[in-house]
Order: sequence, then C-alpha cells, then structure tokens
Amino acid sequence: MAKINQSIPEFKAEAFHNGEFKTITNDDVKGKWSIFLFYPADFTFICPTELEDMANHYPELQELGVEVYAVSTDTHFSHKAWHDTSDAIGKIKFPMLGDQTGNITRGFDVMIEEDHMAMRGTFLADPDGIIQVAEIHNGGIGRSAKDMVRKVKAAQYVRANDGEVCPAAWEQGEATLTPSLDLVGKI
Amino acid sequence: MAKINQSIPEFKAEAFHNGEFKTITNDDVKGKWSIFLFYPADFTFICPTELEDMANHYPELQELGVEVYAVSTDTHFSHKAWHDTSDAIGKIKFPMLGDQTGNITRGFDVMIEEDHMAMRGTFLADPDGIIQVAEIHNGGIGRSAKDMVRKVKAAQYVRANDGEVCPAAWEQGEATLTPSLDLVGKI
Amino acid sequence: MAKINQSIPEFKAEAFHNGEFKTITNDDVKGKWSIFLFYPADFTFICPTELEDMANHYPELQELGVEVYAVSTDTHFSHKAWHDTSDAIGKIKFPMLGDQTGNITRGFDVMIEEDHMAMRGTFLADPDGIIQVAEIHNGGIGRSAKDMVRKVKAAQYVRANDGEVCPAAWEQGEATLTPSLDLVGKI
Amino acid sequence: MAKINQSIPEFKAEAFHNGEFKTITNDDVKGKWSIFLFYPADFTFICPTELEDMANHYPELQELGVEVYAVSTDTHFSHKAWHDTSDAIGKIKFPMLGDQTGNITRGFDVMIEEDHMAMRGTFLADPDGIIQVAEIHNGGIGRSAKDMVRKVKAAQYVRANDGEVCPAAWEQGEATLTPSLDLVGKI
Amino acid sequence: MAKINQSIPEFKAEAFHNGEFKTITNDDVKGKWSIFLFYPADFTFICPTELEDMANHYPELQELGVEVYAVSTDTHFSHKAWHDTSDAIGKIKFPMLGDQTGNITRGFDVMIEEDHMAMRGTFLADPDGIIQVAEIHNGGIGRSAKDMVRKVKAAQYVRANDGEVCPAAWEQGEATLTPSLDLVGKI
Amino acid sequence: MAKINQSIPEFKAEAFHNGEFKTITNDDVKGKWSIFLFYPADFTFICPTELEDMANHYPELQELGVEVYAVSTDTHFSHKAWHDTSDAIGKIKFPMLGDQTGNITRGFDVMIEEDHMAMRGTFLADPDGIIQVAEIHNGGIGRSAKDMVRKVKAAQYVRANDGEVCPAAWEQGEATLTPSLDLVGKI
Amino acid sequence: MAKINQSIPEFKAEAFHNGEFKTITNDDVKGKWSIFLFYPADFTFICPTELEDMANHYPELQELGVEVYAVSTDTHFSHKAWHDTSDAIGKIKFPMLGDQTGNITRGFDVMIEEDHMAMRGTFLADPDGIIQVAEIHNGGIGRSAKDMVRKVKAAQYVRANDGEVCPAAWEQGEATLTPSLDLVGKI
Amino acid sequence: MAKINQSIPEFKAEAFHNGEFKTITNDDVKGKWSIFLFYPADFTFICPTELEDMANHYPELQELGVEVYAVSTDTHFSHKAWHDTSDAIGKIKFPMLGDQTGNITRGFDVMIEEDHMAMRGTFLADPDGIIQVAEIHNGGIGRSAKDMVRKVKAAQYVRANDGEVCPAAWEQGEATLTPSLDLVGKI
Amino acid sequence: MAKINQSIPEFKAEAFHNGEFKTITNDDVKGKWSIFLFYPADFTFICPTELEDMANHYPELQELGVEVYAVSTDTHFSHKAWHDTSDAIGKIKFPMLGDQTGNITRGFDVMIEEDHMAMRGTFLADPDGIIQVAEIHNGGIGRSAKDMVRKVKAAQYVRANDGEVCPAAWEQGEATLTPSLDLVGKI
Amino acid sequence: MAKINQSIPEFKAEAFHNGEFKTITNDDVKGKWSIFLFYPADFTFICPTELEDMANHYPELQELGVEVYAVSTDTHFSHKAWHDTSDAIGKIKFPMLGDQTGNITRGFDVMIEEDHMAMRGTFLADPDGIIQVAEIHNGGIGRSAKDMVRKVKAAQYVRANDGEVCPAAWEQGEATLTPSLDLVGKI
Repeated sequence: MAKINQSIPEFKAEAFHNGEFKTITNDDVKGKWSIFLFYPADFTFICPTELEDMANHYPELQELGVEVYAVSTDTHFSHKAWHDTSDAIGKIKFPMLGDQTGNITRGFDVMIEEDHMAMRGTFLADPDGIIQVAEIHNGGIGRSAKDMVRKVKAAQYVRANDGEVCPAAWEQGEATLTPSLDLVGKI
Repeated sequence: MAKINQSIPEFKAEAFHNGEFKTITNDDVKGKWSIFLFYPADFTFICPTELEDMANHYPELQELGVEVYAVSTDTHFSHKAWHDTSDAIGKIKFPMLGDQTGNITRGFDVMIEEDHMAMRGTFLADPDGIIQVAEIHNGGIGRSAKDMVRKVKAAQYVRANDGEVCPAAWEQGEATLTPSLDLVGKI
Repeated sequence: MAKINQSIPEFKAEAFHNGEFKTITNDDVKGKWSIFLFYPADFTFICPTELEDMANHYPELQELGVEVYAVSTDTHFSHKAWHDTSDAIGKIKFPMLGDQTGNITRGFDVMIEEDHMAMRGTFLADPDGIIQVAEIHNGGIGRSAKDMVRKVKAAQYVRANDGEVCPAAWEQGEATLTPSLDLVGKI
Repeated sequence: MAKINQSIPEFKAEAFHNGEFKTITNDDVKGKWSIFLFYPADFTFICPTELEDMANHYPELQELGVEVYAVSTDTHFSHKAWHDTSDAIGKIKFPMLGDQTGNITRGFDVMIEEDHMAMRGTFLADPDGIIQVAEIHNGGIGRSAKDMVRKVKAAQYVRANDGEVCPAAWEQGEATLTPSLDLVGKI
Repeated sequence: MAKINQSIPEFKAEAFHNGEFKTITNDDVKGKWSIFLFYPADFTFICPTELEDMANHYPELQELGVEVYAVSTDTHFSHKAWHDTSDAIGKIKFPMLGDQTGNITRGFDVMIEEDHMAMRGTFLADPDGIIQVAEIHNGGIGRSAKDMVRKVKAAQYVRANDGEVCPAAWEQGEATLTPSLDLVGKI
Repeated sequence: MAKINQSIPEFKAEAFHNGEFKTITNDDVKGKWSIFLFYPADFTFICPTELEDMANHYPELQELGVEVYAVSTDTHFSHKAWHDTSDAIGKIKFPMLGDQTGNITRGFDVMIEEDHMAMRGTFLADPDGIIQVAEIHNGGIGRSAKDMVRKVKAAQYVRANDGEVCPAAWEQGEATLTPSLDLVGKI
Repeated sequence: MAKINQSIPEFKAEAFHNGEFKTITNDDVKGKWSIFLFYPADFTFICPTELEDMANHYPELQELGVEVYAVSTDTHFSHKAWHDTSDAIGKIKFPMLGDQTGNITRGFDVMIEEDHMAMRGTFLADPDGIIQVAEIHNGGIGRSAKDMVRKVKAAQYVRANDGEVCPAAWEQGEATLTPSLDLVGKI
Repeated sequence: MAKINQSIPEFKAEAFHNGEFKTITNDDVKGKWSIFLFYPADFTFICPTELEDMANHYPELQELGVEVYAVSTDTHFSHKAWHDTSDAIGKIKFPMLGDQTGNITRGFDVMIEEDHMAMRGTFLADPDGIIQVAEIHNGGIGRSAKDMVRKVKAAQYVRANDGEVCPAAWEQGEATLTPSLDLVGKI
Repeated sequence: MAKINQSIPEFKAEAFHNGEFKTITNDDVKGKWSIFLFYPADFTFICPTELEDMANHYPELQELGVEVYAVSTDTHFSHKAWHDTSDAIGKIKFPMLGDQTGNITRGFDVMIEEDHMAMRGTFLADPDGIIQVAEIHNGGIGRSAKDMVRKVKAAQYVRANDGEVCPAAWEQGEATLTPSLDLVGKI
Repeated sequence: MAKINQSIPEFKAEAFHNGEFKTITNDDVKGKWSIFLFYPADFTFICPTELEDMANHYPELQELGVEVYAVSTDTHFSHKAWHDTSDAIGKIKFPMLGDQTGNITRGFDVMIEEDHMAMRGTFLADPDGIIQVAEIHNGGIGRSAKDMVRKVKAAQYVRANDGEVCPAAWEQGEATLTPSLDLVGKI
C-alpha cells in the first residue's frame, strides 16, 4: 500500500543547513508539520527551479509551522558546494539532507533503483509524522509550491476540526462539510 | 517503488457510462490521456463534491484529449443507482468503474485493506498507459480538478517537446528549459 | 467439511437498521436464533423479491425469537441508499450488514471470488451460534421464506425436546420419533 | 467455496437397485437431472422416513426427468439387507449407493470425519452434472421431498428460459422476471 | 515391522453385544486374553461361517479366559440388524465392534484401502494387550477356530512357564523344551 | 498394509540345497506354490523342531506342487554346517536361504531390527508370487506344518474354482460356497 | 577420516568365550590393549587359518597384556557351533563376538554392505580404547599375527616412553628416536 | 566404508622425481602395482627412516613391478630441497608427490584436518588402481617396508591364481588354498 | 578471494571527461593498461591532493599507455561541478566516473556500505582487464602516484618478458630473474 | 568488502623464529604495529628477494615499533630448513609462520585455492589489530619494503594526530591537512 496514513520512515542523515553540517533523524522531524521534497541530483536542470520555488514560499510555510527538507542521493558535501555556487540554490534556508545511501528515498518508496536517484516526490507529514499528502511527478513535469501551501492549509484545518471535511478544491475560509447519516445519498 | 513511470495495471471491469453498462479494460484506456480518480465509496460525503468538481472540468479535459475514470469498490449497479438519485453525481458524463473485487484499486496500490475501500488517489497516464503523475490525499483533504488540469498541460507539453522540461509551477505558455551540459551547475 | 454444526464465523461489520448505522459482531448475534440471508448485490433484480419475501415473514420469525441478517458485499451506505429508494427494500425491518471486505461471506464459505459477490445462501444458527441448516441456490432459483419458517420450527422442536427427532417433511404438531435400540432396523 | 455451480465429484460405487447390484459412476449420472440424498447410516431412526418421503415423490420426480441416488457410508450388501427387511425402505425404487470408502460423501463435502458418516445433505444437479441447489440439515431436522420438487421445477424453468429468473418462493406457473438495465434500482 | 510383540492399537468403538449397544476401548480389552477377528463386511457370504465357527468354539475359549471381538467396517446398527436376521450370526455371544471409521482395522494394519474393508485377519493378544499371534488369509480361504484354540493354549503355556518353549505343532500336554547352552547345535 | 495379496519382494540370495550352493531369486520362485518359513537363527532351540516338522510334511507338499524355502539371517555357509551336524536339520530337503543382509526378511516385514533376526513368520504364495496366507507367532509358540497343509489345499481350491469360497475350517472334499446375490443376508 | 586416533565405537554384543555365552560392551574392553580381528563369515575357507594363526600367538599377546576379539556378522550360536566342530577354531581361547546386526563392523567402518560381511580388518586399540593401528586386506590376502605382535610392542613402547618414536621396521630392543629441534632437516 | 576394493582417487600433482619436476595423475599410476606412502611433513623426525627403509627395498619392489609414491602435504619445491639436503632422503629414487592442497590425502581418507597433514598410511593398489591393502599407524609407530613386500607378493599371487587364497602369514612358495564346497566347515 | 588475477567487473557509467559527458563501460577499458582510483566523495579534503598527484603523473602514465579512471559514488553532474570550481581538480584530464549506484565500487569490493562511499583503493589492470595490483588505504593515509608508476613498469616488464620475474623493489633497468629448477632452494 | 578497517583474523600457528619453534596467535600480535607478508612457497624464486628486502628494512621497522610476520602455507619445519640452507632467508630475524592449514591465508582473503598457496599480499595492522593498509601483487611483480616503511609512518602519524590527514605521497615531516567545513569544495 502507498505511504499515505503511515509513519515517515526511520532515518539518520547528514544535512547542510544555514552554513553548517548537522545530523537530522526522523525523530527530530516530529512535533511540526514537515514537507519532504525529493529531487534527482544536485547540479541538474529542473531541480533548481523547483527548489527555488519552494525557497520563495518558505516564509509562508514557516508561518504555518511547517519545516521543509530537500532530499537527494548526493552527499552533504555536494549540497554545500551547490549552495555555494548556485544563485538559485543559495536562496535555500531549509535543510538539505544527504541521502547517498538511499535509506530515506527508499523509505518513502521513491527510489529509481537503476539510477540510484529519487523520483520527484513531495510528501506532507503532520506533527505526528503521519503522511497526509503524497504527490509524485515523472520526468520534466514541474511541481508547484503554491499548490502544496493550499494542501497544507486543508490538512491543518481537518486536523484542527475533527469531524469536518474539506470538499474538493477547498480554499481557506470556504465552508466545509460535517459528515452525518442524513447526508448519505443526499449530495 | 511507487507507480510513476510504470504501466497502468491490467484490469477488466463493468462500468456505468451515459446510461449504459459496458465492459472496460486497461487496453481500452490506451491511445488517449487518462485520469483515474479513486474514491472510497458511493453514497458518502466528500466524494460527491470531488466528483462534481471533476465533472465541471470534464469539457476542458475532453478538449485536451483526456478521458476520466471514476473508481470505487462499489458495483456498477450501485454507481447507476447513485447517478440516478444524486444531483451532483448525475452531472457525471465520464465512466464510473465498478471495482468490487478491488483489482484496479490494488493495481494502483491505493487499497485500504481493512476497509476494502480506495484511498483518495488521482493518477494521470499518458496515451501509452504510463503513469506520469500520482497524487494521494489522506482523510478529508479535498483534491482540486483545476490543479490536475495544469499538470495535464505540463505533461502534454513535455511529451510533445522532447528534451524540454517544465520548471516549477509552470503554466501553459511560459518559457521552458532545454537541458544541456552548459546548464549543469549554472542554475 | 461444510459449515453445518460449526460455529458462525467471527465478524464485525457496519449495518443499516431502522434508519441507523450500527456495528454488529458475531457475539451480538448469539442468545437468539438467527438467519443469515446472503445475496449478490444491492440494486439488482431477483434479490429484492427474496428480501421482500423474508420481510413479509419477519413478524412470524420475530415471534419465534429469530433475528434475520441480510448480507451482501455492498457497504452500509449503499444499503441505506437502496432502502431509501426501493419500495420492496423499504419494507425491511431487520439489519442489513455491509460486508464489502467479504469477511462474513467467506466465513460462511459462499464467496464467488471472481465476482466478489455472495452466493444465494441461507443459514439458520441456534442461540449458541451453531449452524443447523444451510441452503444454497445457484443463479436465478428463488428461495422461499416459508420453507425456512418450517425448518426453524423443526430445529427449535429438536432443541427443546432432547432425544426426539423430526421425521421427514414434519410440520409443527405432528408426531415425532424417540430413538431407541428397539427401533433399529424396525422402521 | 461451497459446491454450488461446480461439477459433481468423480466417483465409482456399487449400488443396490431394483434387486440387483450394479456399478454406477459420475458419468452415468449425467444427461438427466439428479438428486443426491445423503443420510448417516442404514438401520437408523429418522433416515427411513426421509427416504420413504422421497420414495413417495419418486414418480413425480421421474416424470420431471430426475433420478434420485440415496447415499450412505454403508455397503451395497447392507443396503440390500435393509431393503429386504424394512417396509419403509422396501418402497425405494431408486439406486442406493454403497459409499463405505466415503469418496462420494467427501466429494460433496458432507462427511462427518469422526463418525465416518454423511451429514443430511441433499444436492440437485442439472443434466451437465452442475450442482444447482444444496441443502444440509443438522441432527434431527427432517428434510421435505416436496420442497425439493418445487426447487427442481424452478431450476428447470431457469435452465429452459435463459435470461429469466424465478423470484422468491416461486411456484410453477407464476410470473418470472427478465433482468434488464431499467430494472436496476427499481424493484 | 509387523504387529507381533507390539501393543494393540488405541481405539474406542460402539459394539453390539448381547442385545445392547456399548462403548468398548482398548483399555477395556486388557486383563484378559483377547482374539480380534476381522472380516470384510456384514451380510456377505463366507464371513458368517467363520463367525459361526468361532461362535461354536466360544464356550471353550471362555473357559480359557479369552474374549473374542468380531470387527468389520460396518456400524453397530448394521451388526444388530445382521444379528437379528441371520441364524448363523444370531448364535454370536461375543461383542461385534462397529469400525466404520476404520481406526481399529488400520491399527492392526489389515485395511484394504480401496474397499474400506478389513482383510481376514485374526490376532491373539495376551492380558497385557501384546499381540502374540497374527494370521491373515486372502480372499476365500476360510479360517479355523480350532487351530486358534490350539495356539491360545500354546501361548498361555509359554506365558505361564517362563523359559520353556513349545516345539512345532505342540498340543496341550506334550513335552516342551527348556533352552540351554548345551542344546545349541545339538537338536 | 500387511503383505497379503501383494507380490513377494524382490530378492537374490545364496541357498544351501541338497548338498550344493545355488543362487535363488524371487523370479525363480514363481510358477509354483511356495512357502517361506522364517526362523530366527541357525543352531537355536525351537527352530529345529519346526523345521523338522516341515521336513516331515515336505513329501506331501511336493505332491501338492509346493516348494518350501527356509529363511534366516545366517549365511548359506552356516546353513550347510548346521545341516551337516544336526540330525533334525539333516532331514531337510528343501532350500535354505542365506539372508544375512536381511533383504528377504525385511521384504516380508518380519525383521526384528534390534536383533537382526526374523520373526517366526510363515507365508504361502501362489504361482504368481502373490501372498495368500500369512501367519506370525511370537516367542516360543510353535507353528504346525499340518495346519499349513490344510491352508494350501484351501488356497489351491479357491484358485482352481473361481467364484467359490471355502467356508471356515474347511477340509478338502467338503462342500464350498458360490457367492450370489441371493445369499446376501441369508446365511 | 579413517579411524586411527579415534575411540573404538560403542557396542554391546553376545560373545562365545571358553564354552560360555556372555555380553561384552565397548566399556568392558578398556583398561587393556585390545585387538579386533574382523573376518567375513563362520565356516568359510581362509578365515580359519587366520584365526588359528592368531590363536597360536595368543599366549604371547596375553603376556603383553593384550586381549583379542574375533568379530564376524554371525551369531554367537553360530560361533559356538563352529568352535564345537572345527579343529582349527576349537583352539581359540579368546572371545568371539556375534555381530549379526553389523553395529561393530560398521563402527570400525569395515562393513561390505552388499554382503553384510566384514572386510578383513585388524585394529589395535590402546587401554584408553584409542585405535593405534589399522590394517585391512582385500579378498584372499592373508594377515600375519606375527606382524601384529611386532606392532603391539612398538605401540606399547611409544606409549610407555613419551616423546620417543620408533623408526621404521623397529624391533623390540633397537634404538629409538627422541624428537628435537636439532633433528629437523638433519635426518 | 574404508577404501579397500575401491579405486584410487582422481588426482593431479606436481612431483619431484630423479632431479626433475613432473606432473603425475591417477591415470599415470595404472598399469602397474603401486604403493602410496603417506607421511606427515618434510623435514621431520621419523619420516626419513620410514622413507629410507622403503628406498632400501625399492629395487626389490621394482623387480616385482611395483612403483612407489611418497606423499605429503608439502610442495614439490620442498621435496626437492629436502632431497638435496638430507642423506636419508637423498637415497629416494621414487617420485615424491607434492599434495599441498590435500586432494590426494583426503582421497585416501588419511587427512588430519586440524594439522593439514597426512596420517602414516600405506596403500597397495593393483594395476587396475584398486586398493588391495591398507595400513595406517598412529603417532610414532614405524612401518616396515619388508612387511609390505610380503603383502605385495601375496596380493600378486591371488591376482595371478584366480580362485586360490593365501592363508594367514603366507610366504611366497608356501601352499595355498582353493575354495570349494567340501571345505566349508571342515577347516 | 581478493580481486587479484580476476577480471575487472562489468559496468556502465556516465563519466565527465574533458568538458564532456560520455558513457564508459568495462569493455571500453580493455586494450590498454588502466588504473582505477577510488575515493570517498567529491568536495572533500584529502581526495583532491591524491587526485592532483595522479593528475601530475598523468603525462608519464599516458606515455606508458595507461588510462586512469577516477571513481566515486557521486554523479557525473557533481564531478563536472567540482572540476569547474576546484583548482586542484581542474587539472584532471582523465575520466571521472559517476558511480552513484555503487556498481563499480562493489565490483572492486571496496564499498563501505554504511556510508555508500568507496574505500581509498587503487587497482592496476592489464590490457586484458585482469587486475595485477591492488592497494587499499584506510582513513587518512595518502597514496603515492609515483609508487604506482613504478608498479606499472614492473607489471609491464613481466607481461612483456614471459618467464622472468621482477625481484623486490625492482626499478626499471635492473636485473630480473628467470625461474628454473636449479634455482629452487638456491636463493 | 575488502579487509581494510577490519580486525585481523583469529589464528594460532607454529612459527620459526630466531632458531626456535613457538606458537603465535592473533592475540600475541596486538599491542604493536604489525606487517603480515604473504608469499606463495618456501624454496621458490622471487620470494627470497622480497623476504631479504624486508629483512634489510627490519631494523628500521623495529625502531618504528613494528613486528613483521612472514607467512606461507609451508610448515614451520620447512621454514627452518629453508632458513638453515638459504643465505637470503638466513638473514631473516622476524617470525616465519607455518600456515599449512591455510587458516591465516584465508583469513586475510589471499588464498589461491587451486594451488593452496598465498597471493603476494602485504598487510599493515595497527596496535589494535585493525588493518590499515593492504597491498596485493599478482605473479612476478615484486613488492618494495621501502614503500611500506613510508606507509607505516603515514599511518602512525594519522593515528597519533587525530583529525589530521596525510595528503597524497606524503613523506614524514611534510605538512598535513586538518579537515574543516571551510575546506569543503575549496581544495
């Protein structure tokens, strides 16, 4: 079964974050909402724009209490070098995890084994580490950080308001639904 | 590994479509772009709004050459009854597949076994039946048909323009990227 | 071996009963005589007449201390919708169990696996949950609730009068037999 | 899965029939409708009345083109001796199969292994040897040959009129149903 | 290895004895010498003469402290019916065990599996339940109760006179042999 | 299952016979009736009397067309030495098989493994090599050659007169029985 | 690996010794030097001369504190008979072990399985039961008791004079060698 | 089973022989009688005397048509060095096989695995490569080349005179025995 | 066994070489001498000096007909970025293989699995792809390109002059040795 | 994975050292730096020069606190003989281990199984017994003791100065590197 409604996998990895190397584990992630943003490799073409897009939405996500983790199968040494030399990547203020062993990537089931590279997957986990949203794009189809912000809000609303559900394409502030027997077969 | 870049699973199912029962197989699906829209059960709360949202975007998707397949583990008899009695569902003009055996749902890896119900997964397959985009939401977090239309356009652009990639949050008409050695480490 | 003289299987299911949803388990069933009436699917052709036939005999069965459980592999949502929209089904006052996982149907060994639908089986269990009568019809051969009432009476007589047996086609009030050595080879 | 809609098992057995011993196989049975009437043992109490009841309905069943086979795990020698000495059994004009090995009884899945005796099961097979109706009673609950005659007629009607189904408690001559899309959810 | 010098198998069976049904186990047998007389089936040809022959020698065997058990794979019901209707069998005063499950017959290793009938085996067990003599005849070769009486006496003599052996064709009262080193190679 | 109605086992052994050593196989045995007389060991106590008893009846058996084979787990060298030095054994004119490997003894299922010695078993095989009579005595209970002669005659009569059976304790010249349906349950 | 420097196998056997039968085990053997003299069978050709040769050297071996055990797969009964009737074997004063089961012969790894006879092996064991010398001859090649006496003396000398070794073809009284580093590469 | 009457193992080894290195295989050995003389290691104490003893008897063995192969788990380089530096070993004119892999030593079943050294085993093979004599000494017990010469002669006599056997301690020229039935039990 | 004298493993990898990306396989490597220089990761400390040291000796190696392949588990994208930004690495003119899957590293048996990084191993393969020299350093112990040049010359000399060997610490031009029997034990 | 950064294998071997035989185990080795110098066989061609080269550098290595162990699959007897007779080997003052079982050679993974000889491997272990450097040469390519001395010094420097690394081709006294974040991507 896909990873939705399951716990994020156990991991321990070296990360590059704000000019420092640090060790981050799955336990460190819990207690806040988290987004795991997988991309194939440092120093490649489309990735920087997706990472830059996420970097631009990072302040809004931080206000929502969300931490972002970029993950590729490169080392933290490589992440630092990329951050040092690329304008786009240089904007990133969230941690970049070095997953050269592939443990995290396999744990989220997005490893392309013949390339030892990650698929373009994005995962939203709640403060308990339970995955609420998964989104995976093939090849050159770019992801949208703005869409993900909308989903974060919907997920946070559902968590905060037990028993209410967000109907399709819901935007913050719109009406929601409360399930009841009377509604069965009536919508 | 997740289903991205893999073929849609083999299946054969009875569908309710435009007032008729018909048999649809995975081979029938190929030759066009297709969206598989999984939902948990007929006659429940949030599903109708998601299905109605998709029904409203169906003309636009048809123009893009995309067929939509709604799938739940209910029978085609149940689909017809729901279509007959619900205003929201009555708007649907795309096929509703009866997957009471769960073959399709398991084939896309979105079965919740303890409920014998599907997770809220949406999959976009290209005319070769290869899955290009996957998106799965937990519980009450509603999906957006409009987002899916944007992704369809990006996927179609990448397929039509071999070698170009759509950067993050790309909208139709915007510039794209063509990968080349010179770009490595330069973005 | 067939299920006769065995305990009803363990199960836990959502049921629609008298306008409400409730959870029913195999333990809830014990303490009374029970009839399990399996049928293939909601919203189909012959089933309503069999269910209506049983609904018409329900008062007599209730006087005999018998509860009836209709079972199909549809959900309780579907059962409610059918009950709401069908005149025949609307007469039903006994619980309708949603067995979309197929646990109950497989437990009574009447699952048609390629259809994930139940065969037309009827089972009578005594207050200890032990199956006393099983009857299964193929395809379009309708069952008779009246026959089942006769069998209930015979079964209850045997249970109440230990050591006496009901001869063939026995009707309530007729003479019965008491086994003894002298009868061996004498009838 | 129970035996409904499956072929009768392969067997070869010695039978007592009309004062003679003869060998009967599953192939001999085909080409006509057949009833297999299992009972626990020769020279016991309730069995003679059930067998006598069936003997009394035998002319009607013969007119319907049905052969009856009584089966127990006694030998054909024992069957002859019982037939010679019991008035009730002496009326029987259909074959009595000696199944001391239990092959037939196990083939129909009605063996009580700890007793090496058959449960009280009745099976109706069509001329292709496919089982259409199964009925099993525990302990002292007597079976009714008359009920079985009604079921034979319903089964023969369904076989003769492809596409029509017999609703509940149908008696010969009553109206039947023809399935069609329009009826879905309308009964 | 054959069953000689081994314990009789464990069993529990219904027997017909002196007009009554009773349960007999392997433990009931111990404490006396016992003969187990297996025969294929009730109501057959040669068996009655063998059983009658044993019945005629039964008083002599009783004086020798030997109980006789007739065993076939028929039920105790069948044994009673045969006893009631056959002059030869009517003479029998020893228990007739109903071994329809075949447990006793298999325990003595004389089951003909394809017929579920016993071979014509006779076994003599001592008061400890240890088999001392085994004799099995094929097909129509009748056994002799008189021979068995001679063997009983020889076996009882050996048991009573530890260290002495009965030479070939020994009859009660004749000289026996006491083994000693001097006899080695001298007879 | 015991060895009755089965073929004698395959074997090849050195035998002492009429002052010579010769090789005898199971194929050599066929075409005549044969008696296999197993005994524990050369130069022991009771064996000589049993072997002498058989030697005394050998002329009569030869007239009946029966060959006798004495078998122990001693070598043919030992058989010759015993024959040379024992008056009783010196009378033997039938072959003595050396079965030091135990192949024949195990083939007839009469090996006492902890002693590598045979039980006192006697087997009668017909000219097809099929075992018709088996008789095994424990410890010191002597066998009777005269009894065996009677059984040979009964077995030869049954073989010669297909369809007739020898009743219990039958002696040559007495009446026999012909099985027929009319006799069932009548003796 | 061959048996040298291993313990003699566990065994328990009946032996003929000085006109008596007695039980001998591997434990009885320890405490003295022992020779195990295997031969194929009693009453055969070459064996008596080898056994007689050993019998003639037995007084010398007894003075050296050595017991001799003759072993074949014949019984102790056969050994006695051979001893009684053969002049050569009658000279034997050491125990003759009856190994009809082959346990001892297999324990020393000299069984010819297709004959169930021992190879012509001789083994010398020290008082701890450890085998010091093994010698096996094929077919008709006779063994020499005198050679064995020489080996016994060498083995006893080595055991008594720890650290000294007997050079090739050493005879009692000759010089021996004491191993030391200086001798390495110097002889 | 020990190696007697079996073929010498397959091997291929480098040998030092008459100042040269050459490759010798098991096939090269056949066609002549051969002695395999195993010893633990080059440059050790007792081995040289045994090897020298064999070297002294080598002319006699060559006249008898016997080749000798000395074998240890040292290399042929080591053999040459020992031959060059030791007076005793320098006398050797037969091949010295380098068996550092242990293949030959294991093939003759004389490997001491914990030392990777051979036991002191001597084997005589006939011109067909079949082992006729095996002799193994533990520890410091020296072997005698003269004894082996005697055995060679006996083995050659038996091979040349089919049907005659050499009695115990036979020396060339002495009478031998011809097996016949008359001798059984007479020696 | 270590990799010496074995073939280089099969591989197919993307390489950065002289400003281009190209695919290189194990087959491309053959036909020339090759050095595989493994290092843990791009953008780390000691590696650049070792790579620079090798880069400085590259002209000399090219004259000797040797190609050099640097290998780490980074991608070719990362290699390019490092080459673009590091002065030391910028000097490299030989191919840098991207082994992010670890196939090459595991093929040479130098993977540190818990880090998914290579050990500091250097391998010299001849034009047949057979590994002639292996050298692996732990942690911070730097390798010397000059040493490797010496070894290349020795290996090339041995290959060119069959039968001659290079003694210890041999430098080009010094005398070598030709193995012969006379030298055994003489050096 | 290769042996680098692993513990030396467990072993126990006889060694020749300074005119004596002694037992050396892997535990004896610890507490000092150690070099294991494997070579194929005593009395061969190239080995003496390599061993002599090492013998010449032994005083320098001893000053560095390093013990050297020469290892081949010859015995310690052979080592002594070689030492006694070869001028080159006679210079050796370090222990020569007799590894005829191959335990040490296999433990370092340098066994050539088809020859039961070691590859030309050299291993440097630190005082904890952890292997720091491995170097293996094929065939005739001689090793250099001087190179190994350089590596010993580098390894000792790294061990003594935690956190500093020796760059490529480092010689004692040259500058080393201290890893820090600032250096990443800067060399």
